[in-house]
Amino acid sequence: MSGPTSDDTLARLAAVIDARRTGDPDKSYVARLFHKGSDAILKKIGEEATELVMAAKDGDRQKIVYETADLWFHSMIALAQFGLTPAEVLAELERREGLSGLEEFAARKAQDREAKGI
Amino acid sequence: MSGPTSDDTLARLAAVIDARRTGDPDKSYVARLFHKGSDAILKKIGEEATELVMAAKDGDRQKIVYETADLWFHSMIALAQFGLTPAEVLAELERREGLSGLEEFAARKAQDREAKGI
Amino acid sequence: MSGPTSDDTLARLAAVIDARRTGDPDKSYVARLFHKGSDAILKKIGEEATELVMAAKDGDRQKIVYETADLWFHSMIALAQFGLTPAEVLAELERREGLSGLEEFAARKAQDREAKGI
Amino acid sequence: MSGPTSDDTLARLAAVIDARRTGDPDKSYVARLFHKGSDAILKKIGEEATELVMAAKDGDRQKIVYETADLWFHSMIALAQFGLTPAEVLAELERREGLSGLEEFAARKAQDREAKGI
Repeated sequence: MSGPTSDDTLARLAAVIDARRTGDPDKSYVARLFHKGSDAILKKIGEEATELVMAAKDGDRQKIVYETADLWFHSMIALAQFGLTPAEVLAELERREGLSGLEEFAARKAQDREAKGI
Repeated sequence: MSGPTSDDTLARLAAVIDARRTGDPDKSYVARLFHKGSDAILKKIGEEATELVMAAKDGDRQKIVYETADLWFHSMIALAQFGLTPAEVLAELERREGLSGLEEFAARKAQDREAKGI
Repeated sequence: MSGPTSDDTLARLAAVIDARRTGDPDKSYVARLFHKGSDAILKKIGEEATELVMAAKDGDRQKIVYETADLWFHSMIALAQFGLTPAEVLAELERREGLSGLEEFAARKAQDREAKGI
Repeated sequence: MSGPTSDDTLARLAAVIDARRTGDPDKSYVARLFHKGSDAILKKIGEEATELVMAAKDGDRQKIVYETADLWFHSMIALAQFGLTPAEVLAELERREGLSGLEEFAARKAQDREAKGI
């Protein structure tokens, strides 16, 4: 049995986004973004990231939640645009999860920086 | 059958991030970010958003997954920094979910734009 | 004598921006941005930076010039919003100019990174 | 009296950047960025834009000048990477200058938005 607690919010949202993909650009915000194409979608990533940073600088906790939702929502539209799913992102996050995973991640980042010399 | 959900994955990752919070900055990347404070964390949001945009412009699907994971990971660190959880973001996304929800979101955005005059 | 070659483009543009500041938000884009306030202006910085990155990924030289102009233009509006002038930015750039200046800059950046551990 | 202009300062800085281009990546920050290539340079645009936004949210005027200089400096490196000069950006800004120019710019932006429907 799978009750409400086992629901998968991101998978459901991805399905909704996918259903909007071929919708009427005049009626649906998501259909409109897909209609405009990748650059319009990616521009939103930059915009929403900036808005999250500003909300956080304000220390406005409700706005931080709201802007993070906006950022994740638009990155899910970007995923869909490239035929990808949030499940693939979650699998990558799972791979890094746990003590060893996160430390491996940290080590990689540090090595990257060192290699890049910045 | 009900396996692990995205909600579970993010909740587990949030717990791992929280556990790192008071860790040794010399040993843990996450502890180091928390130690540096909000600006260092927020700067990463801007960085990772830019890297996601670049990966998408390259059409490199594996890198898109990787950079989205980076972006979500660092936004989860930002959430933790302000005492927030991914569950709150998922709840906000759920609120917008479904035909009505997303269209309400679209309508709001359009009204915002109109109100802002840009 | 000061002919066209000694003109100061950024200073002139700053004067134009300043004159727009108290203009009619319904008629002037710049007046509208000032009217909306700092967050609207700063959001544009994030947007235009993303658009410059995308134009550069496309290797579209004309668009790179155009988006850099957009980015500089909006950062000049941000300067004006805080009572600052491009002359102050140019003075900072001059300070870093030349072999010694740029290397000092590089050294500082490297030290910052080291100090920050990322 | 006609002293050095912003155009001169940017042209001189562009020459310095250009001279660094083929320098030793181990000794020069600019040479190192060119050596790493476009993505490393563009990532800096995203970073510096975010840092400018954060400085402005802090209302820290000295930091705003400093971060704007960083942003302009790195966008000049991006210009050089694509064989472009600040003179071309200044020419584009001049083209928009003046009442008519800025209003034309504003009108174009508004039309774009309308056309894009966001």
